[in-house]
Amino acid sequence: MGDDSPDAWVQRNPAQWRHGKTNAECPVDLLGNSYATPADLMFIRSHGPVPRLDSSHTIQINGLVEKPATFTVGDLKTRFPTRKVWSALVCSGSRRKELNIIKHGGGHIDWHSAVGNGEWEGVYLRDVLLSLGVSQDFAVAKHVEFEGADTHSSGYRTSVPFATAFDPAGEVLLAWGLNGEALPPDHGFPLRVLIPGVTGARSCKWLTRITVQSEDTDHHMHKNYYKVLPPHIMSPKGHMEEILAVPPLYDININSVVFDPPTGTPAVAGPLKVRGYAYCGGGRPVERVEVSLDGTTWVQSTFTEQRRTAAGKMFAWVWWETTVDFDPAQHRELVVRAWDSHINTQPERPIWNYNGMMNNCQFRLKVGPSDKGALEWQHPTTWMEKPATAKL
Amino acid sequence: MGDDSPDAWVQRNPAQWRHGKTNAECPVDLLGNSYATPADLMFIRSHGPVPRLDSSHTIQINGLVEKPATFTVGDLKTRFPTRKVWSALVCSGSRRKELNIIKHGGGHIDWHSAVGNGEWEGVYLRDVLLSLGVSQDFAVAKHVEFEGADTHSSGYRTSVPFATAFDPAGEVLLAWGLNGEALPPDHGFPLRVLIPGVTGARSCKWLTRITVQSEDTDHHMHKNYYKVLPPHIMSPKGHMEEILAVPPLYDININSVVFDPPTGTPAVAGPLKVRGYAYCGGGRPVERVEVSLDGTTWVQSTFTEQRRTAAGKMFAWVWWETTVDFDPAQHRELVVRAWDSHINTQPERPIWNYNGMMNNCQFRLKVGPSDKGALEWQHPTTWMEKPATAKL
Repeated sequence: MGDDSPDAWVQRNPAQWRHGKTNAECPVDLLGNSYATPADLMFIRSHGPVPRLDSSHTIQINGLVEKPATFTVGDLKTRFPTRKVWSALVCSGSRRKELNIIKHGGGHIDWHSAVGNGEWEGVYLRDVLLSLGVSQDFAVAKHVEFEGADTHSSGYRTSVPFATAFDPAGEVLLAWGLNGEALPPDHGFPLRVLIPGVTGARSCKWLTRITVQSEDTDHHMHKNYYKVLPPHIMSPKGHMEEILAVPPLYDININSVVFDPPTGTPAVAGPLKVRGYAYCGGGRPVERVEVSLDGTTWVQSTFTEQRRTAAGKMFAWVWWETTVDFDPAQHRELVVRAWDSHINTQPERPIWNYNGMMNNCQFRLKVGPSDKGALEWQHPTTWMEKPATAKL
Repeated sequence: MGDDSPDAWVQRNPAQWRHGKTNAECPVDLLGNSYATPADLMFIRSHGPVPRLDSSHTIQINGLVEKPATFTVGDLKTRFPTRKVWSALVCSGSRRKELNIIKHGGGHIDWHSAVGNGEWEGVYLRDVLLSLGVSQDFAVAKHVEFEGADTHSSGYRTSVPFATAFDPAGEVLLAWGLNGEALPPDHGFPLRVLIPGVTGARSCKWLTRITVQSEDTDHHMHKNYYKVLPPHIMSPKGHMEEILAVPPLYDININSVVFDPPTGTPAVAGPLKVRGYAYCGGGRPVERVEVSLDGTTWVQSTFTEQRRTAAGKMFAWVWWETTVDFDPAQHRELVVRAWDSHINTQPERPIWNYNGMMNNCQFRLKVGPSDKGALEWQHPTTWMEKPATAKL
């Protein structure tokens, strides 16, 4: 994102970790500074330079609706009630670096933790669709397609099931605000869709069109990518038919990460306070988060922050913390696992997949030697890089 | 369920495995005989002898509705459209025997596989609530309580979140039929609620009352039981406050079980056809089922049967099958894991919990010696009972 980039006009926070020209993330340690991730630290995943739009930009809504219409953000603000929704935003490839260390696949961005959380502001897509006379027959209206003003040569389109877009408890937003301010250009100014609980790739930025339709989108990024491929697929070559048959990712899985202690913290005997975040997709509450020093006995953590919707859905991350009694003579790791309200939990070990998607293995800190030979806590992306301990 | 029982008048299939007087399950091998589990083989979990009801039995609907009303099944059939929904029914304690072999907890029924699948017939609870002028404000109507005509001394009541009961894609039924016939007495004749994707304990039988309310039910079975307790709770004693704070079970987790080969099948070299079922809660589709002979490489199975709703939800089990090349010189086990559309999968090993609830560990057949010394396939409830191999 240097000065020669067509989006050099975009203001950015230099504290972010950059991944190539169009992608960036918040350093893991900073994620623990505020429950609402500052907009200028929220991870950025864009498929090209940011389009330069202003408030006259319009969004067209058509397809299986009686009255197709075109709105500016101003029109939406005037015609529909303003809503606020707390929701995490999660990249399908968050924690990919751990998988890429095992074996580098087709997901090029080595994300540590492409996750943020905030209060989004906009109008319910449901309210807008109802006002346009949308078909409410699930046998007819099966998908909702979103198109962005992306500058990428093939553009960007994606879709979600109609039942998701229209769920009265789902709180899908046409969003113009984040944490009380206008969306920054990197996050879709002037308008994006925000689909709480669904992987970030579906929350299309710089919205130009929404279409209610009978099929999912045919855009190549939706059909070919943003999927968890079965582990025998080591490369797309020769597997295209199989890949097309894999369902696209929608709801995200249960996950938890430690932001405190950060990697490199001295590992000293005594009480150790551990803090982190956890989230689940589909509005399913995170039920509990457990920490273990031996992989067998688990200490229950306490939620220090959480948000639920009136309907009881949880789209925001939870913050959890607990204190464990660390003894360097006994303990070599610290492991975290979260449980969702389905009673799904995180796998003990990473399950590699070609695109490096949706890694939600237990978050495992190791006690290792620092450069000066003292003991320190190391996050997976630190200890996994050391050849001597890289084997899983 | 002997002749001295007050429900000796109920006709039952002697092929079922009985667990005490009021509970029974379909032998695992027979689950693979038909995609729709015959009503007289569907598992039975009752908290007392079956109440003797007839078609004049009424159900009252009240609480946060403008027009409380009382209906017979005949009234429901006349006033609302009849709906059919394919759904699995799953006991929270299914596969508990595997956990009880590790350590016997507070779940007394040693279920092998308390699961069945069928086509349920009734009316949508949503349609009925809409006709009565239910509050549609999620901040007001938070739970729906169901009461059964159970003969148990403290009766039976339970509840689900209003967003679940009222979900337009959730297809919650007031059901009078299963697989084209009237519900048998053991399954709630004349009327039960059937909440697809939610643990069986919420699908209250012998319905007498439904109340839309602002709180969940205060019934002791709901508040104290049907919960997955954290692993440090080895007995309720001294933990009651903690237990009350654990959320009740609703949506079930991803699970898969082999019904073919059944336990005791000779393990011989060559192609081995493997068949089973898999399901997930909350309407989330089972995305794939994988089989491994070495715990590292996985063969993808094919779905031979599945059902989805018009909205794309999957409440029924899927049937899957694949063929693996078994070599007794190399292979000592056969493991199955399923993935849901959230990209949650099954834990490698059982995670014990006091009530023995929601065990969904990978289903693991072992190759072991038969009584005659030949090699045979053994299901977990067989190999785990052998002291020499009981350690996990």
